[in-house]
Amino acid sequence: MTNLEEVITQIATDAKKASFMLASMDTQEKNAVLLDLAKSIDKERDFIKTQNFLDQQEAKEADLPKALINRLILSDIVIDNMIKNINDIANMPDPIGKTITNKVLENNIKLKKIRVPIGVISVIFESRPNVITDIAALCIKSSNAVIMRGGSEAKHSNLAIMSVIEQVLQRHLGFLNTVQMIKIIDKEAVTILCKQDKYIDLIIPRGGEGLINAVKSCSTIPVLKNYKGICHVYIDENADVEMALNICYNAKCQRPAVCNAVETILVHKNISEKFLPLLYKKFSDAQVQMRGDEQTLKIIPNIQKACEKDWSSEYLDLIVSIKIVSDSNEAINHINHFGSHHSDAIITSNKSAQNLFCRLVDSAVVYVNASTRFSDGSVFGLGGEIGISTDKLHARGPVGLNEITTYKWIALGDGQVRE
Amino acid sequence: MTNLEEVITQIATDAKKASFMLASMDTQEKNAVLLDLAKSIDKERDFIKTQNFLDQQEAKEADLPKALINRLILSDIVIDNMIKNINDIANMPDPIGKTITNKVLENNIKLKKIRVPIGVISVIFESRPNVITDIAALCIKSSNAVIMRGGSEAKHSNLAIMSVIEQVLQRHLGFLNTVQMIKIIDKEAVTILCKQDKYIDLIIPRGGEGLINAVKSCSTIPVLKNYKGICHVYIDENADVEMALNICYNAKCQRPAVCNAVETILVHKNISEKFLPLLYKKFSDAQVQMRGDEQTLKIIPNIQKACEKDWSSEYLDLIVSIKIVSDSNEAINHINHFGSHHSDAIITSNKSAQNLFCRLVDSAVVYVNASTRFSDGSVFGLGGEIGISTDKLHARGPVGLNEITTYKWIALGDGQVRE
Repeated sequence: MTNLEEVITQIATDAKKASFMLASMDTQEKNAVLLDLAKSIDKERDFIKTQNFLDQQEAKEADLPKALINRLILSDIVIDNMIKNINDIANMPDPIGKTITNKVLENNIKLKKIRVPIGVISVIFESRPNVITDIAALCIKSSNAVIMRGGSEAKHSNLAIMSVIEQVLQRHLGFLNTVQMIKIIDKEAVTILCKQDKYIDLIIPRGGEGLINAVKSCSTIPVLKNYKGICHVYIDENADVEMALNICYNAKCQRPAVCNAVETILVHKNISEKFLPLLYKKFSDAQVQMRGDEQTLKIIPNIQKACEKDWSSEYLDLIVSIKIVSDSNEAINHINHFGSHHSDAIITSNKSAQNLFCRLVDSAVVYVNASTRFSDGSVFGLGGEIGISTDKLHARGPVGLNEITTYKWIALGDGQVRE
Repeated sequence: MTNLEEVITQIATDAKKASFMLASMDTQEKNAVLLDLAKSIDKERDFIKTQNFLDQQEAKEADLPKALINRLILSDIVIDNMIKNINDIANMPDPIGKTITNKVLENNIKLKKIRVPIGVISVIFESRPNVITDIAALCIKSSNAVIMRGGSEAKHSNLAIMSVIEQVLQRHLGFLNTVQMIKIIDKEAVTILCKQDKYIDLIIPRGGEGLINAVKSCSTIPVLKNYKGICHVYIDENADVEMALNICYNAKCQRPAVCNAVETILVHKNISEKFLPLLYKKFSDAQVQMRGDEQTLKIIPNIQKACEKDWSSEYLDLIVSIKIVSDSNEAINHINHFGSHHSDAIITSNKSAQNLFCRLVDSAVVYVNASTRFSDGSVFGLGGEIGISTDKLHARGPVGLNEITTYKWIALGDGQVRE
């Protein structure tokens, strides 16, 4: 074993041990840790902001894209939200031990399906240091041990937040090693982590294609992918134009650097001449760069031409691609082919177009007449989120408290044997 | 691409296309296929049995273990059961399109979580050709396309059953390529299959350590492992001795070649002197070979000594290992360490021992005072089973109809945008 392998294996075995301890903690004990964590983040706000400022400085010096720098920033609003999320999770019912189904078999065996922790979860994420407390709080509440690995561009912020978490854990003795972070920058650490199937039960990579593919190809641990968000809004011929404009504006501009922002707008040909000039006006005012296909350029000629790569690009910025389609089926096929199975919307008053779209779009969340920006564990009432799964297995869409649990069957008999 | 890669890729793309067709089939159409299949298996019974006889002959000539040959046999009882399972699945409610949760968000968005097919599932199994119709029927009913790969020892039986399935599919035009089998014996086929993540959504290996590890280490597709069954019965100091004897006998002898049969019996030291001589009598009469640890040999000296390897052996035969433990915790630790997280039982009238065992044994199914032999999708009322998952993600224990579905969120708004 190399030195790095030894370090990672130690972290993984410590997490496994901690997961057994967590399994015997009651709800009150877990909530006490969370409430302490919320208070401590508030108390250490200045320290966290100072460390975050170092990351911002280094990111600017390294000339990182503006969208990425935006995702790094821990403003007071972001920190307030971190604290709110922790408190919200403390106030949620404990999922562990809950009965999911309950029946009596013909032979009188009482069969129950109950919710239990998964065990040890590893989350690998890029930028956005604020997610650390979401992940930690969700894992503590669901009695899972967690091993995090953050992006190097947020290293000062990550370490600052982790030091606050570690102080809290130290005050609650049973919780040591419950939340750990791999602080080694070496990329090899991820490869080694992905092989610890003896100790880690689930690995959740959140990020771009490079990260997802690296984990997918080397992991012997089940993977729940939180892939990029190439989200679409499709403006059907029967769309309310005012509503369509508002939703496109919201989905692109309200927070362009997040995964549920829209990247491609598909427009039915029969509404394109009415809709596109209005969209052009609205997006130009908001300084959104538009890239259109040939048909689009015939209606709004003052924009860039989209190339093939645009249809599969997650801009995370004030850029949008636009394509005219001849019907709902073309829109659906485009979304299933180029999208990332995340969140996609149709704007239409036509019920059969709504139904077709909902049935055939193969995405985690399908919207009718609403912005894609709502795909979020808190908004969906799941108790925050550890990510948004673009996978189909285990959990799809926002991954909240219940989604990081599993179940166990308990069969209570009085001597039954099989005939 | 090699020739083999081309063949497998074609099968996988055909399955993907078929899965889109299946998604638009209604319940009646799917049930019609199933009822036709049940009838056709009955009609072709003699043909299937003749082909199965060839496999049995070849297995005997190749001197395969008796347990494996037993698993191969398609007797009239086994074929009757295949037919019964198909009819049962036809009679079950269609899971697809069902609403799982339904709520209205604060902003008045109507949010539904509905059950949808996974898409394309691949099942790799060893021996037991009768599972083909279970797998086919479950996948058709749940609108999933399926690609099967059976063991070479059952090749005549597999091909015979598949030819019946193919004739049925041909009579129902929309269903072509819905159920496919890889008929090439080359082991490389599995490696290539495991890389088809563009077309296959889930891979389910059912079998021994070699198969599971091969799939786990090379698959870029999510894997649901159906690992071996190293099941335990723990006889607590407060066990009803008569009940304990019956359950041990049933769990070992009723059908030793299946995964939910018991392989190791753990006995509390305080009951061992009373229990073990009675167990020895019962198992000797049933010609069960017993292998005990040192303590066990002090009480029943006429049996073999167990070695370290016995604790992690799936005998699938009339062999059992026995170990004396000093308390419930030692039993639980033994099970979690050597078991396969499948099905484990405690025999005791002591409530706190029951609770401790249920809480800490990390297995898919935990039994109190009942035989491990009940772990079965039909018995659990899940509509048959495609296997028994020893994984923690997505599905645990018997994998029935609902377990091979996923969900999709549908959000119905009237113009909502995020603040």
